[in-house]
Amino acid sequence: MSERIAVICIGDELLKGAVVNTNLASIGVRLLALGVVPVSSVEVPDKRDDILAALDFSLARAEIVITSGGLGPTADDVTKEYIASRCGLRLEEDGAAALNIMKHWKMRHPSEEIPPRVFNQALVPHGAKILQNDCGTAPGLILKTPDTDEFPGRTIIMLPGPPNELCPMMDASVVPYLKKTLKHFTFTREFHVAGLGENTVEERMLPVIARCHSQLSVAYCATAQFVRLFLTSESPEIMESAIQAVQELFAAELLADDADSLSHEILHLLEDRGETLALAESCTGGLAAKLLTDIPGSSAVFAGGVVTYSDESKTALLGVPAETLRKFGAVSGETARAMVEGLAKAVPSDAAIALTGIAGPGGATIGKPVGLVFAAIRYRGRTEVFELRLRRTREQIRERAVAGAFFRLRDMILNPASEPGA
Amino acid sequence: MSERIAVICIGDELLKGAVVNTNLASIGVRLLALGVVPVSSVEVPDKRDDILAALDFSLARAEIVITSGGLGPTADDVTKEYIASRCGLRLEEDGAAALNIMKHWKMRHPSEEIPPRVFNQALVPHGAKILQNDCGTAPGLILKTPDTDEFPGRTIIMLPGPPNELCPMMDASVVPYLKKTLKHFTFTREFHVAGLGENTVEERMLPVIARCHSQLSVAYCATAQFVRLFLTSESPEIMESAIQAVQELFAAELLADDADSLSHEILHLLEDRGETLALAESCTGGLAAKLLTDIPGSSAVFAGGVVTYSDESKTALLGVPAETLRKFGAVSGETARAMVEGLAKAVPSDAAIALTGIAGPGGATIGKPVGLVFAAIRYRGRTEVFELRLRRTREQIRERAVAGAFFRLRDMILNPASEPGA
Repeated sequence: MSERIAVICIGDELLKGAVVNTNLASIGVRLLALGVVPVSSVEVPDKRDDILAALDFSLARAEIVITSGGLGPTADDVTKEYIASRCGLRLEEDGAAALNIMKHWKMRHPSEEIPPRVFNQALVPHGAKILQNDCGTAPGLILKTPDTDEFPGRTIIMLPGPPNELCPMMDASVVPYLKKTLKHFTFTREFHVAGLGENTVEERMLPVIARCHSQLSVAYCATAQFVRLFLTSESPEIMESAIQAVQELFAAELLADDADSLSHEILHLLEDRGETLALAESCTGGLAAKLLTDIPGSSAVFAGGVVTYSDESKTALLGVPAETLRKFGAVSGETARAMVEGLAKAVPSDAAIALTGIAGPGGATIGKPVGLVFAAIRYRGRTEVFELRLRRTREQIRERAVAGAFFRLRDMILNPASEPGA
Repeated sequence: MSERIAVICIGDELLKGAVVNTNLASIGVRLLALGVVPVSSVEVPDKRDDILAALDFSLARAEIVITSGGLGPTADDVTKEYIASRCGLRLEEDGAAALNIMKHWKMRHPSEEIPPRVFNQALVPHGAKILQNDCGTAPGLILKTPDTDEFPGRTIIMLPGPPNELCPMMDASVVPYLKKTLKHFTFTREFHVAGLGENTVEERMLPVIARCHSQLSVAYCATAQFVRLFLTSESPEIMESAIQAVQELFAAELLADDADSLSHEILHLLEDRGETLALAESCTGGLAAKLLTDIPGSSAVFAGGVVTYSDESKTALLGVPAETLRKFGAVSGETARAMVEGLAKAVPSDAAIALTGIAGPGGATIGKPVGLVFAAIRYRGRTEVFELRLRRTREQIRERAVAGAFFRLRDMILNPASEPGA
């Protein structure tokens, strides 16, 4: 069995509800890719007794404890100090960490003196290994704690709290460290499967799992845009055959290895072809455009978008005939088609998506329930119109409508030769 | 001193990173409004030993323990069973809960039989008080545990895991229960202060806090759109005077009591006046439209939007002169003004916002750093153009750009008589 891992997230703001704790999920999904699920996570305020209680709870449950938060320069950053005192270790200044702090300070505050408290971040428990922080001043630490009867062979990994520092350090330092040190750990692979539900992905995987006689561990994690599928095995042969099986089973649904979202994949596919995309959104109200432009550099592909949330704007911005709206309604395949045709005139592009539907909670009529969405997709002159019937909250309906349209466009880009839609 | 409260969030998905745990923040911010910060939160998988370990840890630290998750009908919903067994209580069926389950099942699955396992949700530990769940089948529970030497006078409040069930139950049942039972607890009030940083809000509050001689507790929680400001006091007079002080100190910045976001407040203000809003977004790429249309019923106000992420689309959709783009650049006050003027022609409306800027991480040039954003706001024929210099990540720059523009529009709506902009 592999070592157990426990997590501690430190910071008043997590308990006050000022900040949603994304660090646990960021750590959890990276460990899952290694085939490990943390046994617990504890959030505590920046107080000595609370941190020590969380530490004892976690050290009793796991060989490796990962902490986030409390490594910064202010008075409430006390993680290192309390962990060192709990382990009977003194803090000493690390030269390399001090240099990195000076470098970062000068970059951000070229004309200001460094306040002495900033150098507290270079103090580390005796014997700790430094993890470089490329996005901030507080280094991370790996500390093999001195053996005690109660807690023999424990390791504490300390990371800074800001997610934009923690995530890169997990990737650059902690995951490679765990890959080297976790017992029995060997091979892992992550896939992104789009266009299928988690249950379907699980079901299709059953024969693969059966064939591998418990030498393969498979984990799933559903996001709004796709299912993350993780394979772990100790055998390179089993791993090789499982990878091949996944690639065959999900030939039509696997995203490119470097695409961490459907919008990312769409951007890459179009960018590779030197093509552009335009959007016309009704029920999704700008969400598709937002998801595309979340990605730096998307301007090379994104030709432009319109958000036509009202009938009037569908006519004014996209030239949807009032007759179409009256006869078929704003939520109809006919309106979706008219939107994508109007979009072609307003924003010339190689690919175009139009979405219209009922995100709820209001707006349902007889025969048109909440969650009914029509999408029209145009690619290289061919147009496809289709209907989605989505469930759950307004937010989830909007997310899934965008994911559904992006997935269909991806299919049309990858299979441009298939028969033209009606 | 008030009772201490600890939180336990149960579910494999939290530790696998499949789901970000928003329940802790949802619980935390509601407790903060009561003047209480939880002493800890523990996330554990749906396993007996892990749940019992979290329970012992939490009962040792707090008089009240709030749990989320594990109350549903499937095999891994085990919270009630393990908590009851830990307390030496038997589970028994609650008639009212069983009826509510039947009602919800029939609404969602009118033609299907109820599987017997669904009724597991009506089993409750002997003596527990039922909390009604209007959004799902699993009831919440308040259980005063039998006194033991180790844990006397403890209360366990169990809530379902889905956030769309947990949050309404916190508001409808748990907060009122705590208001009645928490010792020394009396008066609370929440304000939303927009357009100021958390530090400024804190600073302005210092004299108020000093004047109240520790009879007033003040807490802050910064969001992307505003600072949440919580007042708590045991004295009605102190509370009354503090409320008045806040209303005077932040006369220009306080949102309406029922506005839980700036977009919400903008919608209400315009709806009350029978007016409409149009948007032209460059760097924010649809985020402003998305935030507006997150709110059901926004179609009454939102006339339409365009996302002009490229120079070409600024010209094609908004008629921004190529000359303006060449001479001043896409990120300039002149372009912002041309965008909002073009928007007036493309989408007639009473209010209009245009945003253009550099969200980063790339795109900076000499004199135009990442975070530089120009906004043009038109309201009732008057146009104001202003510049924002924002910091941090791409996501935060985009959020703050939208918040800045919404806040200025709010000001123009509330003060239509102030002198016209240049």
